[in-house]
This record gives sequence, structure tokens and C-alpha cells, in this order.
Amino acid sequence: MDPILTGLLKPKSIAIIGASTNPTKIGYKVVLNLIESQYKGGIYPVNPSATEILGLKCYPTVNDIPYVVDAAVITVPAKGVLEVTKQCGEKGVKGLIIITSGFGEVGDVELEREIVRVAKSYGMRVLGPNIVGTLSNSDHMNASFAPFLPLPGKASLVSQSGALLIAMDAATYTRRVGFDKMISIGNMSDVDFAELIRYLSEDPDTSCITLYVEGLHDGREFINAARACKKPIIMLKAGVSEHGAAAAASHTGSLAGAAKVYSAAIEQAGITQATDLNDLFDSTLALSLQPTMKGDNLLILTNGGGVGVLATDAAEKYGLPLKFAPPEVQEEMKKHMPDFGSAKNPVDMTGMAGNDWYYETTKSAFAHPWVDGLVVLYCQTAITNPAEIAEAIHRGIKDAGVTDKPVTISFVGGEECDNAMEWLVERGLPAYNAPDLAVKSIINLRKQQQISEINNNGSYNPGKIDSEKARAIIAVARKAGRDALTEIEAKQVFKCYGLPVTATDLATSEEEAVELAEKIGFPIVMKIVSADILHKSDAGGVKVNIKNTDQVREAYRTILENARNYKPDALIEGVAVQEMAPWATEVIIGSINDKTFGPTVMFGLGGIFVEVLKDVVFRVAPISVEEAMRMQNEIRSAAILDGTRGELPRDKAALAKALAAYAYMVDDLKDEVAESDANPVILYETGKGVKVVDARIILTKK
Amino acid sequence: MDPILTGLLKPKSIAIIGASTNPTKIGYKVVLNLIESQYKGGIYPVNPSATEILGLKCYPTVNDIPYVVDAAVITVPAKGVLEVTKQCGEKGVKGLIIITSGFGEVGDVELEREIVRVAKSYGMRVLGPNIVGTLSNSDHMNASFAPFLPLPGKASLVSQSGALLIAMDAATYTRRVGFDKMISIGNMSDVDFAELIRYLSEDPDTSCITLYVEGLHDGREFINAARACKKPIIMLKAGVSEHGAAAAASHTGSLAGAAKVYSAAIEQAGITQATDLNDLFDSTLALSLQPTMKGDNLLILTNGGGVGVLATDAAEKYGLPLKFAPPEVQEEMKKHMPDFGSAKNPVDMTGMAGNDWYYETTKSAFAHPWVDGLVVLYCQTAITNPAEIAEAIHRGIKDAGVTDKPVTISFVGGEECDNAMEWLVERGLPAYNAPDLAVKSIINLRKQQQISEINNNGSYNPGKIDSEKARAIIAVARKAGRDALTEIEAKQVFKCYGLPVTATDLATSEEEAVELAEKIGFPIVMKIVSADILHKSDAGGVKVNIKNTDQVREAYRTILENARNYKPDALIEGVAVQEMAPWATEVIIGSINDKTFGPTVMFGLGGIFVEVLKDVVFRVAPISVEEAMRMQNEIRSAAILDGTRGELPRDKAALAKALAAYAYMVDDLKDEVAESDANPVILYETGKGVKVVDARIILTKK
Repeated sequence: MDPILTGLLKPKSIAIIGASTNPTKIGYKVVLNLIESQYKGGIYPVNPSATEILGLKCYPTVNDIPYVVDAAVITVPAKGVLEVTKQCGEKGVKGLIIITSGFGEVGDVELEREIVRVAKSYGMRVLGPNIVGTLSNSDHMNASFAPFLPLPGKASLVSQSGALLIAMDAATYTRRVGFDKMISIGNMSDVDFAELIRYLSEDPDTSCITLYVEGLHDGREFINAARACKKPIIMLKAGVSEHGAAAAASHTGSLAGAAKVYSAAIEQAGITQATDLNDLFDSTLALSLQPTMKGDNLLILTNGGGVGVLATDAAEKYGLPLKFAPPEVQEEMKKHMPDFGSAKNPVDMTGMAGNDWYYETTKSAFAHPWVDGLVVLYCQTAITNPAEIAEAIHRGIKDAGVTDKPVTISFVGGEECDNAMEWLVERGLPAYNAPDLAVKSIINLRKQQQISEINNNGSYNPGKIDSEKARAIIAVARKAGRDALTEIEAKQVFKCYGLPVTATDLATSEEEAVELAEKIGFPIVMKIVSADILHKSDAGGVKVNIKNTDQVREAYRTILENARNYKPDALIEGVAVQEMAPWATEVIIGSINDKTFGPTVMFGLGGIFVEVLKDVVFRVAPISVEEAMRMQNEIRSAAILDGTRGELPRDKAALAKALAAYAYMVDDLKDEVAESDANPVILYETGKGVKVVDARIILTKK
Repeated sequence: MDPILTGLLKPKSIAIIGASTNPTKIGYKVVLNLIESQYKGGIYPVNPSATEILGLKCYPTVNDIPYVVDAAVITVPAKGVLEVTKQCGEKGVKGLIIITSGFGEVGDVELEREIVRVAKSYGMRVLGPNIVGTLSNSDHMNASFAPFLPLPGKASLVSQSGALLIAMDAATYTRRVGFDKMISIGNMSDVDFAELIRYLSEDPDTSCITLYVEGLHDGREFINAARACKKPIIMLKAGVSEHGAAAAASHTGSLAGAAKVYSAAIEQAGITQATDLNDLFDSTLALSLQPTMKGDNLLILTNGGGVGVLATDAAEKYGLPLKFAPPEVQEEMKKHMPDFGSAKNPVDMTGMAGNDWYYETTKSAFAHPWVDGLVVLYCQTAITNPAEIAEAIHRGIKDAGVTDKPVTISFVGGEECDNAMEWLVERGLPAYNAPDLAVKSIINLRKQQQISEINNNGSYNPGKIDSEKARAIIAVARKAGRDALTEIEAKQVFKCYGLPVTATDLATSEEEAVELAEKIGFPIVMKIVSADILHKSDAGGVKVNIKNTDQVREAYRTILENARNYKPDALIEGVAVQEMAPWATEVIIGSINDKTFGPTVMFGLGGIFVEVLKDVVFRVAPISVEEAMRMQNEIRSAAILDGTRGELPRDKAALAKALAAYAYMVDDLKDEVAESDANPVILYETGKGVKVVDARIILTKK
């Protein structure tokens, strides 16, 4: 672990610059919180106009402290922070925790940047500014103005909203979801989410990472950090109703809202996306306390048919439908229920279930090798005591002698149930007040296992690429003052990255057209090439199904004539002579250069599917071939690719390679390509590949 | 209100038949519960072997009670219930609350039916059997073995699961969601959901009806009762993962899972569908306490940007995106926040917001005529007291002097927040622990208003129908031993209900074919008609685009020859001569006869949309034309109907009428038609109508 970052987040001593004797000031509150959290390191208040604060010696400046200072919490007004930063640098402080606000968030980005520049020149790192501070149970450290350390636990929170962090801090006690660390990240002028993910990934006191994110600066670095992290990450992304406001020049651009790209990136990064604040807590509870679920066999125990049915519904809803338990499991379960109970799955012991049955079924079900994960449900009855049921379940789990599979629990009832669930959670068993939450949580643990099994190297090199040639083609267009390539140029660029484009070449004379047509082979398509004529068909500039040289000559003349009539002053480069690809399934591949995540590819079926249903998926480039295959399976119309209405299955393998090559291309050319479309791409039956029929590249503004 | 039902649910006196002196018995528990709930009516324990129970005189039989008995709670074993029922009948009891289990739920349906038959012969009504009993706060009556009355409130619960009712009863206290009545409905041998909806709809102590449903006996009666009810109804349907197992003979049949039809029916009935148990409580809270929201202008007040953004996301997610507040509202809000606050919407007073600002913004926002609904958010801070903020909000709402618009609240934080929210709920203000829940709840109140505005008469008479002719056509097919109509017959039936079918007639000779073709007008289509040849095209039995009489003759001969070669022993009725409808947008209309809801119609776009995307919607028949219009707007591909890719908008008005007429038909013929399809139906541009090109009717088994 980076020693500087450790100095910032796990400091052995802390200076509070702007410490105050006034109890209403944050500079007082931070000193008090450090004392009250029983911080074991040095606490050094700094304030030129005080000699003592809360019984601690106060220093005029950080340089007057006669000890090593690892971290400095800064609470002085914004205008004084730069000076203080310099002093800390001179003192040899490792990290600054800048609580002070009034920087980037109110538009003053420059001052913030200058502070980071100065800090870095001294080798210091900056957390903030505009934050609450940072809290850690394992370090007994409340270096913040949040009133107390959170309920201890194994998850660690990083929050971009300070207000929410304070509220969540208090909520840990009522919701019984514990955290080891809570880190306020504020304006992220230096230390960002990616870096904290990498740090917490190595932190022995953190078993799972919980994020509240409003926006990222560097989306790709975030994805890389998340992918490299071996611990579960749960993220609540706020601001999904934000609209991608920029006008879009390509199909792909118009379909890619910021929220969609974020969602794709979160998925791609192997992060569990929380739907709301309660889900953030609920998911954290199970992912921080339980091991992942290694297989698909989920067993549900219950004493109530109603909650059993609700749990069954939830299993289907969240993508892990129940299977019937095998006979030997059913046989064992049957021993602990009345005749009218059901041992299938859910195992319904009926309302007659007491402590012993709960103990026995829990123990034998959890121990059984068929069971990959167990959900135990309890519906409060008049004849049982929730505390005793909880104790029986806990003992059953322990006595099963199994530790590598997960269990989640739900008790539905009143206060006694709440208390019993609190008792269970304290013993590492996640318990929820509704059956669907227990099921959703264990399915999150199943998904976490699947995430860990995915080869997320995220890249594919199509081989034999000619990046230089592609850049030369782009340079020609730029030199001509164009912000887009012609179709011929775009196809040439595609070809440099191994994409199978229809053979296309430019003819500037009738003879040349005939020559090219004979080289390509009939039938061919001919199209006008002119940057001034965008709607080629409207201009009478497209002729298809040309079968012989006579037709080539005639088409050449007609296209030129039509184009001149359509727009007399158009600068005409010539006529494109193209291979005519036989028709099959139409798909669209495209890319945008997202402001957060950079080059991002899109895939969907063509025509109505993209235009009306907007049935498209995104991935941040580059991607692996496996990821490209997953994209194909993710669209709602995926069944079409597998062959419907009597058609043979489509060549998904070839399409996956093309998609991955495309992603490689837009990533490689990210400084040049703003948006692009391959539309349509014709997708043939298995073994027969794909063909890019039309191509478009819009260049970045330079 | 029905006096008999009132006697059952609001009895002036209760006999407990099977009352016991043994505290572990339900018969003891019910007597105890009636006493402890301070029931004011007569409590008469009945047990031949006891003289006194819990200080109350005990009678050998119900007939020995010297007073009027309104209701009898029955807890004797199953085998004794019939005898007791007779005795109650003789005594003149109005209603039986049969707690005893061991009837239909374990397969003994006959005994259950006999009991109801006997009860009805005496004019008695039956609740149960296999129930917990019934509880009512306004009647101080706990006539159940659930341990106590629920937290008082304005909602009433009807639950098909007794276990869940007991658990929910306890949970009302921890979740602070109050109920007036909790009614266990069990096997629904007599009194069912529909009847209780009608009863509670008139109950002055119930403001909203909450249902937990596993299955309905009579779905249509349920829909009718819900539609007639002027109070909000919230329903959690358990068992949505249940599969429609019956083999389906039609397209529609294969697409209509039980869960889909349930969902359609719930929507159609104007019921708020809860997604899970927590949602059932959350939705009940707001719908039972607050008025509906009359317009779309939702304003959000907050002290934290984070929760404000989460609330904004939720508003979009649940279908009521925020608008910017008008200048005069912003101006007023600006007075109560620092310069860096935002008055747009959400109105962000920032973390500096204290009691006064909350009071002022709440009061003026709630009073402003632009605001149709208000959500007040609070994120716990170190400088505010949640109890005081709650008090300020409550005072602001009161002082606004407005009572016909809703407000919901969310506090995020720890125990003090929970306590403050409890205080708010006690004062009729729904408060939730996460911002999205407050937003979802107020949007439920908006939807409730929209439900009340929908004209739900649910029927459409296409006029000039010829039901008799339709039945005669069906009778012919039945007489011939067929379980399906031919295409010609099906179209004739469709025509009897005003559906625009392509002109189709049967030719049994070449001459007749020519005659029919000339009558219909060229071009025409000709098809083999034989119950033995299902795949007409495969048999060479279809010829299209026939343009003159010569071609008719040739087609007639070829079709017959092909058919004979294809299946020499086929019984051939002749050749259908049909109008050839010009091609346009293909849609599908169909019906099934659902076992719960009866005749149910389906609508979707044809081809890939129905086969791959399964983009179809259902409604229980009959439906109004307005409802048929909503069906068209509900499919995911709805945009296609409005014209895409340069096409003119489709004739949705004509399609709506056709759909409603179709629904009328399948409802009218529900004893005859099991499933049907009109597939394809060709839908033309506005003003040009629709045409049913192919038709299929499968008859009910008789």
C-alpha cells in the first residue's frame, strides 16, 4: 500500500489546522471527535490565537509542532488554505484532509487546482476539499465533523455527498449495517474513487466497498480500479435523470444518455448497482458479512406459506429461480414438519415450526452439498419466540460446520423480530424485515461470484492493425478542413483495424469505374462521393444491383448528372464503386467519446429495433471478445440472433470479434474519433461472418 | 350496507364455539383477545364441558345462549363444524367466522361446500374457514387468535395468508403503519375479496384498502368491485412466478401467463400494485393518510443536495419528472436559503437550513397554487434537531391552510430521525427513511387521482351485433364434431360483431369461385378449406394476387390438385375466395379464457414483435374504446403506431374500436370460445381503418 496514502487515511498523528476553542466551530468539533473516538495517535491543534484546546497544547503553525505530522485536517477559510498547504509541505505532512468548502463547487476551480499543484510539489496528497472528513473504527479515528463513529462493521463507505455521509453515519445504528471506514471525498481534487477503491481493496479491515457517486472525473480509471478489486463493490449512482445534453451527430450519440453509459460502465466494472438508499444498505449488509454463492442451488426454509411464496417470486424476479430440492434433501426436511408441510422448495415447516425444527432443518440444509445458498424465513407466530428462533438458526448454521456458503434471513413481525434480527446481524448473519430482501441479497452474493469468474481483462487485439495508415487517412480529411470522413475513408480506417467492410473504391472517371467494378466483381453498388451531398439517395446519387460494365457506364453518367442537377455548386470527388453485400440480419455498431468514460461502443439490431425500441447496449472500450458476446446476449431482441422464424442462427462469434475490433479501433483513435457508426452491418448465418456496408466517422474538434 | 355482512364483521355480540379453559388453545385465546381488546358487545363462550371461561359464563351449545348472537367464531375441529353450523342457523346467527382448518386447503373441498350450503340455507354468511379471525380497532374487537389489535390507523387489510396477517399485525407497531381492520379471508368459501372491497368501500373507518392476495376465485367480480370502489386499493399479489401450465392452442394462449393476466387485471381495476411487502406498507401509509394529487406539479424541499438528487431520480423513475418551479415560487424560496442554495426544484436550502427556514419554505410552497404536491426531505446534520425540524414542517403544513393536496416526508439519519418521523406519522404526515420512498408515495397519490378520473365503465357495444348467427355458425362446427372453426367460419363470427374482416366465401366449384371473385373484386387470394389440412401453404393450397377469371379457374384446379396430392384422404370442403387486403402494419389481436378472469383480450404488433419481443398487453373483456386506446399506448413498440421511418400515423381510433368489439365478442361468446386470434390484422394510416386478414376460433370443451 502506498505509504503516502496510508499517511493520509491511517495517520499516526494528526494536526488540525484551524482548530478552535469555540464549540460551534468545525475546528473545535474535529478535535473533540478525535478525542472522543479515542484516537491513539498524536492530536495537534493549530491556531495562532490559542494555547490550548480541549486540554491539548495548541501550536501557532504546523511547523511549530515538534513531532512528525502524518495528516493535517484543514478547516481554515478557503482563502487561507493555499498558505497552509505550503506550510504543511514544508513540515513534511503526508496528506491533507481539506474540510473547507468554497472551491470548485462554487466555481473556484483554479484555487483548488493550485492547492493540489503545490501539495504535489511537496509529495503530499489531498482528500477534498469540501468534505466532512474521514472516519475509521479500526483506527479509533473520527477525523471529521460527523458526530460519532459509525456502527462497527466490515464495509467501508466512500461518499461524494458529505451531508449524506453524516446522515448515513447515524443511520448505521438504526439499520444495523456497520462500517469500518467512512470517507468523504467531496470535490475529488486529487484522491478520487479509483484510488480509494485500490486502497480499500488492500485494507484488511474492509471486506466490501460501498460507494455513493454523483459524478466521476476519470471513468476509465474507475473501471480499471473496480475490475482489479477482489472485494464486492456496491454503488449508488445519483443523478441518473441527468440528460446527455450535447447535440449528437451520430445515431449512437443520440442513443447514449449519460445514465446509460454509467450503467454500462458499472456493470462492466463488476459493481453491484444499488437502486436506492435502502438497497445500498441492504446490499452492503450481505456482501460485507457473507461469502459468495458458488452455485445456483438456492434453498428456502420457512414457517409461513405466504412469505415462502413472496420469496419464490423474488428468486424469479432477481434471476435465480428456485429448483425442487433433491429427494435426499426433501427426505431429511420431512422429518421436521407435519404431514401437511412441504419439503420441496421452499421447505415449508408450517406455522407449527418451533425452535427444534428450525435448528434441525437449518443445520442439515446448510450442511447438504446440494445447497449452494440458504435463505431462512420466519413469520412471527403466537406460539414461538423470535429470539429463540434466531438462536436456533444461528446454532444450526454453526453446527452445520460449513463456512464457504452464504445464508440470509428474514423475520417478518414486530419489535421482538427486530431485536432478534439485530442479534443475528451482530453474529454475522444478514437479516431483513421482508423475504424478498433476503432473497435479493443472497442473489447478489451469487452474482458477486459470477463477477469474480468473468475474465475481465477487457481487451482484444485484432492483430495486423495499421494505426499509422488510419491516422494518415484522418490527416487528409483534417487538412481538407473536414470534421467527418467520407464513407470511403471511414471504411478504409475500419479496414486498418481488421473490420470486414464491403470493398469500396473511388472512381474519378467512367473507365476507372469499370475497372474497379471488374476488380470487385458484380453485382455492385455505385454512390456519389461529395462532402456537399449528405443525402445521397435524395440526390439520385445511388444505384444498386449493377450487373455489367454497360450498366456501370450508364450509372456513372447518370449519378454525376443527377448530382449536378441536385446541387450545381457541389464539389464532387467522384463515384464510389462498392461490393454489393447480400442482405441478411441488419445490426448497428457505433461509438461515442463519453466525457466521463471516453470511447464507448454501442451495439444493437438495425432498423426499427434501434430507432423505435432503442434496444441497444453500451460498453466502455476496449472490450474482450467475451464481453462482446455478452453484449449480444443482453439486448432484448437477443433471440433474433439465435435464429427465429425459421432462420439459421447468426454468426455471433464473427460479430463478437468485429465488435471487439471496433472497440479497439475507437480506443486507439480516441484523440481523433468523436463518434462513429457502422450502420448497417450485415450479419450472416454462423460461419458466414459479417460485413460493414456503410461507415461513418466524425472527428474530434481540434 | 348489507345487514348480514355487518352482523358478521361488526357484530353486536359474539359466540365463541369451541371456547376453551386451556390457555394453549385457540378457543381460549379468542375469548381472551375479545376481553383484552375491550369488546363492548356480548361475549358468549360455548363449550359443553365448561361452565365459565375467563370469568364469562359458558354455554353448552349456541342455542343455550339467552341473547341475540350476531356472529359465531368457530374453533371446534373440522369434523364438528357442520353440526355447529346447523345449530348457529337455528339460533339465528348472522355470520360464521370459521377459524378451524382442515378443509379445502388439505383437499376436503366437499365438506367446506356443504357447510356454506347449510349456512346459506339459514341466511348466514361464512368468513373462512382456515383463518386467524377478524380484528377491528374502531369496534374494539379482536375476534382472532392474533395476539393484539394492530396500531390504529385508517387503512384496512384483507389477507389470504393468516400467518402473514399475524406477522403484519405485529409489524404495524414497528413500521408505524396503522390499520383499522385486519380481516383473515382464508379459503374464501363464501365471503371473498370482492365482497369485502364493497363492504370496506362503505366503511366510514376505512380510508384505504390493503390486500394480500394469493389467488382469486372470481376475477371478474373482483375487478368490478375494485372499479366501483372510490377508495384507494393497494394489492400485493403473491405467486407471480406461477406458470400458466396449460398447453396453449393459440398464439395468445402461449403468451398469456397467469401473472401477466393478473397484472393486467390489477391495472384495469385501478388498483395500486405493490411490488413487495415493504412497498405494501409504504404505499398504504401515504394512500391511507393523504388526499390524492390533483396535478403534475411536484415540488421538493431539501437541506441536502444528495437526497435531492436521489429524489429527482425517483420522480423520473416513477413517471412524474420534476419541472422547474415558476419564478414567483423561486423568489419566495430564495428568501430562506443562503446565496449558494438553489430555488429551482428541488429547492435546496443547503445544510444550513434550520427550523425557521423549513417552516417558511414548507408553508409557502404548500400554500402556492402552482404546487400540486410537496415532498419535504431532511438529511440529519450536526447543527439541527430532527424533532424540531419535524415540528416546523408540521406547523408549516398546518399554517399553509391547504387541505386538498398531499405532502410526504423523508428523514435520513439515526434514531432521532426515526422518532421524529414517528411523530409526523402520528399527525397524519407520511414519513419515510429514504427520499425515493417519499417520492414514490406521492406519485402513487397522483396515480390514484388519475385512476379516479378514468371512465372505467369498461364496456363498448359495437352495435348491430348478430349473436344468434354467430352461435349458429359455432353450432354447425360442433355438430360436425370439430373443436375449432374454419377460417371462413371464424371470419363470419367476427363479422357478426362488426369486425372488419376481408371478404371471404367458400367456393365448391370452379364456377362458384369465378362468381365469388367477381363479386369481391380483383385481386383476390384463394386458399384450400379443409379441417384436415392445417398448413395450407405447405400443401400448395394458397394462391395470392389472382387478377382475373382465367387465373381463378387455374388456381382453383391447381389448389385442389395440390391438396389431393398432399393428403389424398383429406376431407376437402372447397376453396376460399378472399379479398386481398393491401399490406400495411401488421398487428395481432387475440383472446384466451383465463381460469380466474374469464375472457381476456391481447394486443400487440405482429411478426417479430409478438414472436421474439413478446411485446403484448392484456385486458379482461369487455373493455371500453378508451381502454383499447390505452392498450395501444402501453406496448413498448407504441411509437410504431404513431408513424416512424417516414410512415404516416396508423388508424389507432379504428383499431381501438376493433379491439373493443373483439372484447365484446369474446365476452358475449365466453361459453363457446376458448381461445381466438385475429392474426394478422392489417392496420392502415389514419382514416383508412383496419382489416382482419386471418381468423381463428378454438371452441370450449363441452
